[in-house]
Amino acid sequence: MNHLPYGVFSTTGQAPRVGVRIGNHVLDLAAALGDEVFAAPSLNPFMALGPVAWRETRRRLQDHEWDADPIPLGQVTLHLPFEVADYVDFYCSLEHATNLGRMFRPDEEPLKPNWRHLPVGYHGRSGTIVVSGTPISRPNGQRGAGVFGPSVRLDIEAELGFVVGVPGSGAFEDHVFGVTLVNDWSARDIQAWEYVPLGPFLGKSFATSISPWVTPLAALSAARVDGRAQDPRPLDYLRRSGGPWGLDLELAVELNGEIVSRPPYREMYWTPDQMLAHLTVNGASLRTGDLFASGTVSGAENGRQGSLIELSWNGAEPVKLANGDTRTFLEDGDTVTISASAPGTDGNRISLGEVTGTILPARSIT
Amino acid sequence: MNHLPYGVFSTTGQAPRVGVRIGNHVLDLAAALGDEVFAAPSLNPFMALGPVAWRETRRRLQDHEWDADPIPLGQVTLHLPFEVADYVDFYCSLEHATNLGRMFRPDEEPLKPNWRHLPVGYHGRSGTIVVSGTPISRPNGQRGAGVFGPSVRLDIEAELGFVVGVPGSGAFEDHVFGVTLVNDWSARDIQAWEYVPLGPFLGKSFATSISPWVTPLAALSAARVDGRAQDPRPLDYLRRSGGPWGLDLELAVELNGEIVSRPPYREMYWTPDQMLAHLTVNGASLRTGDLFASGTVSGAENGRQGSLIELSWNGAEPVKLANGDTRTFLEDGDTVTISASAPGTDGNRISLGEVTGTILPARSIT
Repeated sequence: MNHLPYGVFSTTGQAPRVGVRIGNHVLDLAAALGDEVFAAPSLNPFMALGPVAWRETRRRLQDHEWDADPIPLGQVTLHLPFEVADYVDFYCSLEHATNLGRMFRPDEEPLKPNWRHLPVGYHGRSGTIVVSGTPISRPNGQRGAGVFGPSVRLDIEAELGFVVGVPGSGAFEDHVFGVTLVNDWSARDIQAWEYVPLGPFLGKSFATSISPWVTPLAALSAARVDGRAQDPRPLDYLRRSGGPWGLDLELAVELNGEIVSRPPYREMYWTPDQMLAHLTVNGASLRTGDLFASGTVSGAENGRQGSLIELSWNGAEPVKLANGDTRTFLEDGDTVTISASAPGTDGNRISLGEVTGTILPARSIT
Repeated sequence: MNHLPYGVFSTTGQAPRVGVRIGNHVLDLAAALGDEVFAAPSLNPFMALGPVAWRETRRRLQDHEWDADPIPLGQVTLHLPFEVADYVDFYCSLEHATNLGRMFRPDEEPLKPNWRHLPVGYHGRSGTIVVSGTPISRPNGQRGAGVFGPSVRLDIEAELGFVVGVPGSGAFEDHVFGVTLVNDWSARDIQAWEYVPLGPFLGKSFATSISPWVTPLAALSAARVDGRAQDPRPLDYLRRSGGPWGLDLELAVELNGEIVSRPPYREMYWTPDQMLAHLTVNGASLRTGDLFASGTVSGAENGRQGSLIELSWNGAEPVKLANGDTRTFLEDGDTVTISASAPGTDGNRISLGEVTGTILPARSIT
């Protein structure tokens, strides 16, 4: 009862509705708490109620002020937990940005001059965000001048996503409802050809997978740590959050059942309160359901990067699997699962809801 | 009756609903046609019905198979005409891309190697798309290392936007409902500092204005022209539309009541069917309400560019106004109005619904 992540589930013949996970069961919240806000097919109406309602719901659940039989997970179908408004993807790992700079722009300084001054980010495609378990078709696209076909450098990006509950703009805790794991699938060949000068587009927009479970911020209070030292000192608007909002989550990336990386979230350079402050400093408003993700979580140590392009160093050093297989990028049929754990509020670790996906062959272009 | 653009309007005490513009009047379509799909506060339900319903509605309107009194425009409030799903902004003018390349990257070839091979584009922020007439606050932001404050290079981008009606992916006419004028406000100083390597973000995301009226494709049939010659020849997937979808629209940009530019849409390099084919070739699906815009419409002739940064050549050659004022970028209180006309189906020209906005001083950062 120290985690209590929220999701949307259905049972045979019943419409999707909000549930909370308790171990290997789901509690139907509309039934258990008698509140119609949970009868919606997404978390959005509940998230829009704001922090007081979030706290009160969590308290009622923890104090067992409810009456219903939790349903075994095996009997439910899980759905996209919220309706995604705008999706922003940041680029907050110093190591990831440095590694990709080296590979994409070998003749330049790996970090652009702006990188240490602001959390670099861009908008992604909301309409292709899918729930964990959705198969991912290998994208077709241009991989160079006159070169067209299925991506041959299909990659993952292990990320943490932050889900906005309350519209407007203001302090982190007043707006952000919780976190979810994100796999920002990336076709590196399409991306490398298209991304100048306006950024990634089709190399990312075919699919982004998220966990079916959103972990409320309250469940992460024991995971909060100081952010990493930042030099130069960020501008005032990036230092006002009442943090700390560094998060001591350990991610794990499984490829066909074998863990190939353990990205450490606490090593991220920019913290999520800074992402939010930056995202809104120009006056841009928030909407319920906005999702902003951290960018690939990559640690400094080898084997702790959140993408295959880093783990295989641009394909030069294939990742060796225990069964003798090797991988540079993803092959058809591969399954990637990202999980994460964090210190819980009662001393036990909590395991965030994982995000998984299997690669299907490219669709034929007719 | 050769135009019949659609919008969403309200009168005192009545909820917003769909109307069609007839001269200086609005026809309440739910009342006139007796169809509840028009009682919605957005065009989305009607747009989702698809081309057969669009044609039939247009025919009934043109054949005067309706009974209601059109309401004078002066008695209605106009609203955002559709609920925006994903917003993509392209970069389809050869002249604009060349001009901006020269200014942003003076030491390089102005066009990146990919530009003639694909319509370059990126995702923008849907949640800050506002209807014409909404005041635009000058954005705050980082303009360089350690430099923060209101943008001092606030600009416009005169664009044409294409509104998706039918989800899925397929032929242009089966999915695109119509067009609307777009002003993609741009803070050039914020953009220049932030945009590497992931593209424009806060320099654009504070606001994008669109016309309250969506012109159906059918009204533009006489405006269709061959697209511009393309060299190299585009890949097959970019040449399959059953076009032509070049469009002979003439835009006009008014600054404080004076026309300062007349961007010619027919000079655009990439056509909207190519934008759509590219957007979806990786498998990305469409949703009702997706908006994709052309990017700034700039002609080859001087004085026919769709942005101030081009008209003033990066501030070096201020635009002179008739009243003696000059402008490089926008000042507080300035009003910009973008309009457009096109050959109509009956030989008379049609005037697209204009998009206007006035600049307010920057909000103070507290």
